[in-house]
Amino acid sequence: MKKVTTHVAILGAGTAGLNARRAAEKAGKSAVMIDPGPYGTTCARVGCMPSKLLIAAAEVAHTAHTADMFGVRVESMKVDGKAVMDRVKRERDRFTGFVLESIDEHLEAGRLIKGRGRFTAPNVITVDDHTEVHFETAVIATGSSPFVPPPFRDLGDVMIDNEGLFDWDDLPQSALVVGTGVIGLELGQALHRLGVRTSLIGIDGLIGPLSDPKVKEVAQKVFEDELDFRNDYQFESIEELEDGGVILRADGREDRYDTVLMAAGRVPNVRNLGLEEVFGWDTRNLPTVDPRIGQIGESHVFIAGDVTNDRPLLHEASDEGRLAGANAATWPEITARPRRAPLGIIFSDPQIAMVGKSFREACDAGFCWGEVDYSRQGRARVNGKNKGWVRVYGSCEDGTLIGAEMFGPHVEHTAHLLAWAIQQRMTVHDILTMPFYHPVVEEGIRTALQSLRSRLHLPEVPNGCKELIESS
Amino acid sequence: MKKVTTHVAILGAGTAGLNARRAAEKAGKSAVMIDPGPYGTTCARVGCMPSKLLIAAAEVAHTAHTADMFGVRVESMKVDGKAVMDRVKRERDRFTGFVLESIDEHLEAGRLIKGRGRFTAPNVITVDDHTEVHFETAVIATGSSPFVPPPFRDLGDVMIDNEGLFDWDDLPQSALVVGTGVIGLELGQALHRLGVRTSLIGIDGLIGPLSDPKVKEVAQKVFEDELDFRNDYQFESIEELEDGGVILRADGREDRYDTVLMAAGRVPNVRNLGLEEVFGWDTRNLPTVDPRIGQIGESHVFIAGDVTNDRPLLHEASDEGRLAGANAATWPEITARPRRAPLGIIFSDPQIAMVGKSFREACDAGFCWGEVDYSRQGRARVNGKNKGWVRVYGSCEDGTLIGAEMFGPHVEHTAHLLAWAIQQRMTVHDILTMPFYHPVVEEGIRTALQSLRSRLHLPEVPNGCKELIESS
Repeated sequence: MKKVTTHVAILGAGTAGLNARRAAEKAGKSAVMIDPGPYGTTCARVGCMPSKLLIAAAEVAHTAHTADMFGVRVESMKVDGKAVMDRVKRERDRFTGFVLESIDEHLEAGRLIKGRGRFTAPNVITVDDHTEVHFETAVIATGSSPFVPPPFRDLGDVMIDNEGLFDWDDLPQSALVVGTGVIGLELGQALHRLGVRTSLIGIDGLIGPLSDPKVKEVAQKVFEDELDFRNDYQFESIEELEDGGVILRADGREDRYDTVLMAAGRVPNVRNLGLEEVFGWDTRNLPTVDPRIGQIGESHVFIAGDVTNDRPLLHEASDEGRLAGANAATWPEITARPRRAPLGIIFSDPQIAMVGKSFREACDAGFCWGEVDYSRQGRARVNGKNKGWVRVYGSCEDGTLIGAEMFGPHVEHTAHLLAWAIQQRMTVHDILTMPFYHPVVEEGIRTALQSLRSRLHLPEVPNGCKELIESS
Repeated sequence: MKKVTTHVAILGAGTAGLNARRAAEKAGKSAVMIDPGPYGTTCARVGCMPSKLLIAAAEVAHTAHTADMFGVRVESMKVDGKAVMDRVKRERDRFTGFVLESIDEHLEAGRLIKGRGRFTAPNVITVDDHTEVHFETAVIATGSSPFVPPPFRDLGDVMIDNEGLFDWDDLPQSALVVGTGVIGLELGQALHRLGVRTSLIGIDGLIGPLSDPKVKEVAQKVFEDELDFRNDYQFESIEELEDGGVILRADGREDRYDTVLMAAGRVPNVRNLGLEEVFGWDTRNLPTVDPRIGQIGESHVFIAGDVTNDRPLLHEASDEGRLAGANAATWPEITARPRRAPLGIIFSDPQIAMVGKSFREACDAGFCWGEVDYSRQGRARVNGKNKGWVRVYGSCEDGTLIGAEMFGPHVEHTAHLLAWAIQQRMTVHDILTMPFYHPVVEEGIRTALQSLRSRLHLPEVPNGCKELIESS
């Protein structure tokens, strides 16, 4: 058994791990990452980047399909699945290429040890059965893995996840997408628009992260109008066929699909790390982590990235990695850093965004709200993208913006405006003094803010948000 | 001659005039607008709205044309010019319809007098030869008209302006677009993308409002690559043909066009208003107007909207109208109001935006800059929109953002982010604590801001910006 000594040991060489290493080094301490691969980060390899590439192709196909309303006659078109996947993989490889270059350097310099690591003592991580890493502090940045709900656990190769999808050389004829959360919505709608016969099934009425009943209601209708979208489906049975497909029986229907794309959420990779054995932690319920510090309980072990199960987003993983790496380097001295305003975006069409407090979170306190119906918004109508609804939440006392749930055209951009405003604790009055150009979708946001301002004198929504839910 | 008495007389019933009237009424004063028509506002009738409608169709055609790179094979398409113009006019009429409803009410209620008004005494406006409006204060909100450069002044019906274009029932085969400013760029590129053989000619190397040499250089190349773009053309002659077309001889070439679209800028409508005769004002050089007040000199006459020749934009016309109307109502008591941060957007592709101080304006002081090359930006590349360059300008002392010139994908949105930051006097340090999602074009703006931050320790760019110009 080889022995390596370092100040900070980092489990994982993804976005959080790489940032943790850099931060520890910047603080003047040695750091070693441990990761069995595949390398290249979840985001660049099988997450945000390739999904946006698939969506880009889907959006182009959708634009061509719906060109007629503008007087542009697309008389004949077809989606070349091989060419679609070729571009997706080629560009994806370009993005991961930048990461892989640095990974090679880390491997060569001994800053990254290839293998699966687990704690075997409070200050020792054993990598496979070949290396012992002795450390002062550690960072867990092991990411997450797809969750597979029970009815699907016996399926064989017919079932893939986002990892498998981005290995495709061609598009299938048909796909059953399981999960109406973020990944299911993005990939399911994209496949549908690329001509794959797609069913998108989920439970509990889930539509991504949306919690506002009115915004959900509008989104529900839009997705149901476009594709076979059943986010409250009743499972009967699933049968794997000899020819490689499946038959799903659900909702009194029977449908055959070439492939099953599992997108029913992800679970943090906290098992088999020795956390129970060495530290006595229950992995289903780790000691409290203050996200402004990244420390697990009062220990010398820090945690960052998707494994925290808090905000599984690239930009948060970067921040958390830096924070955990810096604090792991200086521990027992640690520094709390303010977090950025919460911002989550789902690249469906229309897009979904969650900014600051969600409806559900805002409900716990009581708040006033404003809204805009994007079906009547000028620029959205000009571009034939007039679908959606946005709700903004603010303090009834002084109109400070506290959150928003957004479903509408280009909300990836307007969500940034609102997130920055929330982080700066701006009131609706402040925001309405800012420039809004014409004609832009930002004017829709202004409408929502004006609607919030006009409601500030009304009695607060009581906690539980009963009235708001009933009025929806 | 009919006699009408009012507190505030308003010349013009466009965006500025309508807002001035509402503000005067809100301040408890009577107000009468005078306008010969056509009604419906420049923006909704012949400006921002119909141009965005034409651009929306052009963008769809362009997407279909360039779909191949995504693996989407559009094997056969054609632009149905009649259907394109039908949608443009139908939606345009819907937008103007909202305005025209209120216009009818104003006419009926005597709040709007149809006719051409001119000052005939310091407190009298005469409308055609039928009505005398006696007033305490007045607001000039007469808008602007297309400017026609000398070589084209003798052309007949073959020449149209934006007003004529939006009356088309079909697209022409070919068009000569005169002017590489805002309107020429937007409409010229749109016509080109809709299959009209288009030449876009201009002088002085003009590309919309751009003044930053580096941003201009990149834009120049992009527009030249896409279409016959000559913004420093050498005029030889223009000849109107009997069949209704023209032949332009310029740059040693000879080209025939079906139509000439005049888009060489607009001039404020200040002539024939009696301003010289009654007030002794030189209309080429009106007394100073403080835009935070809207008053002409020290007089009881206010001015608002495009006629000010300051920021000829819808949202500024609304603000100016409200301001002028409110001050005209309370005069001689007047209130100065802060203006919004400057924001101008040109809906070409890539889009152009000007935020805060331009390069030229910033040069007068001295500043530090940052930049991003959008050809290498992640999300822009994903969407096949990786063209453009953005420069941001900041105070070298503390990094306060002061302006930006932008050419790139979706800058209509990122320009809002920067404009709001400038209005709030944020520094680059402040802005970089805000959330930037991944992958989004906003990350390109972060790159530019980081580049500005890294240059803050460098010596200031001396006034005149010689070094920056030379380095470009």
